[in-house]
Amino acid sequence: MAAHKIRIGVVAPGSRIEPTLAAKIIALAEAQFGDKAELLFHPQCFRSSGHFAGDDAERAGAFVEIANDPNFDALWFARGGYGSARLAKQVLPALTEGARRKTYLGYSDAGALLAGLYALGFEQIAHGPMPADLNRDGGEKAVFRSLSYLVERAPETLEPNVSPDRPSAAFNITILSHLIGTPLQPDLTGHVLMLEEVSEYMYRIDRALLHIVSNPKMTKVAGIRLGRCSLIPPNDPDFEQSEEDVTRHWCAESGIAYLGRADIGHDIDNKIVPFGRLRSREQS
Amino acid sequence: MAAHKIRIGVVAPGSRIEPTLAAKIIALAEAQFGDKAELLFHPQCFRSSGHFAGDDAERAGAFVEIANDPNFDALWFARGGYGSARLAKQVLPALTEGARRKTYLGYSDAGALLAGLYALGFEQIAHGPMPADLNRDGGEKAVFRSLSYLVERAPETLEPNVSPDRPSAAFNITILSHLIGTPLQPDLTGHVLMLEEVSEYMYRIDRALLHIVSNPKMTKVAGIRLGRCSLIPPNDPDFEQSEEDVTRHWCAESGIAYLGRADIGHDIDNKIVPFGRLRSREQS
Repeated sequence: MAAHKIRIGVVAPGSRIEPTLAAKIIALAEAQFGDKAELLFHPQCFRSSGHFAGDDAERAGAFVEIANDPNFDALWFARGGYGSARLAKQVLPALTEGARRKTYLGYSDAGALLAGLYALGFEQIAHGPMPADLNRDGGEKAVFRSLSYLVERAPETLEPNVSPDRPSAAFNITILSHLIGTPLQPDLTGHVLMLEEVSEYMYRIDRALLHIVSNPKMTKVAGIRLGRCSLIPPNDPDFEQSEEDVTRHWCAESGIAYLGRADIGHDIDNKIVPFGRLRSREQS
Repeated sequence: MAAHKIRIGVVAPGSRIEPTLAAKIIALAEAQFGDKAELLFHPQCFRSSGHFAGDDAERAGAFVEIANDPNFDALWFARGGYGSARLAKQVLPALTEGARRKTYLGYSDAGALLAGLYALGFEQIAHGPMPADLNRDGGEKAVFRSLSYLVERAPETLEPNVSPDRPSAAFNITILSHLIGTPLQPDLTGHVLMLEEVSEYMYRIDRALLHIVSNPKMTKVAGIRLGRCSLIPPNDPDFEQSEEDVTRHWCAESGIAYLGRADIGHDIDNKIVPFGRLRSREQS
């Protein structure tokens, strides 16, 4: 492991968080890692502009500030919601070399920017829990996992199917659907694609999966693994097919291998999925 | 006007309808047009398979049967919901020459198949009310409008901005978003694109609009007109921007002309938008 203190900058490209949440996360990190880690929550995390943690310029500015600052080892997305995709055009062209030597960790809405960073060839992109997961019952577990990954690359934090042999990537189904056909659509050729969802009706899960596999480039994935789809509202009438049924169906229809389940989701058991091949630093 | 009786076949590629609704629509058509029109509701409209009006094979089969039958002048979508996109791969390759000489009318979920038909060069595709609109307060008005279009090409049924000078097309925002980057994405170069939405949160309307304008081909439209976005659930926190605000914003960001409002939406005032240029038969 790196001997130096791991500095983690937190920004909120989507929804805002409360300062009290930031204080709790900092206390947790101190208790767990002492001098080995230092967290800084950018003040932008607490701003508010309608739906967002500050307007687009504030959120993009904070992201670029932390990303380009060589004093930070990692940029951690504070929370999902919605807002990352709105910033891509401002953020991505503004990133400098310092931004490449950094880990980016988040999931859900964050997937839009993670996809953009991955397209730029950034090598340390990961799908995993965020500070706002502390608000879940038992959420410390999720936050500890992400900190253990960021600070120590602890192998037990990883989704068990990630591998040095085959690249992986993980996305929220709805977020990935909204990247299809845009410059942010990631090239996932040969990747194991892990997908998860929360709070969407079954007909919407089905519709978004159909959208994803209908894009010709997306059929070049090595296969799909389905994470957890939680808090699915009751469909009226009953959909009569589960999330795994429809995933199997659309995989079969589009010639994609269905590889089984993935240990990811909007919950405290959400494991870390580094994008690309698992590298030696992450296997130790 | 055509002197022969206009025969309209109704199918339900998405959600099912009740036989009592079909009976009411037939009675309305008789009262309004007597011998000038004849409606046939395919029995598939009343089938049920989970979310859908029969399974994919039943729904695709009914669509192809009516579409290819030269005895029908029009195929009318019974209702939206969800299901059209699931049928495209089975339906589109099965259509024969008879299917080209026919009007196709529907909106909302129907947009997925209307887009596919338009891509095949079909010349009589239109966005407009469906039989299920009779369930709205005052819904007879919407149903009469579609029948008047199908039977007489009555000019007062048309959205006032459609024109022989410039092609038009109309879509539900969410449905179009789910076509982006797929073979069903319509080529709308030079088109006035009219968009409408129902029952979606403002953040989702914003997200889907961003998706649509982020596709490079979509920026080649002549401009966007915004129809009505109805039944928008309260955003938490308040989004602080209206549907017109965000449409103006994403048009400006992507270099698309914002052309003002369109007289379409999920309501009884929803006007007819024939895809492409308005042709002489429709202007009389």
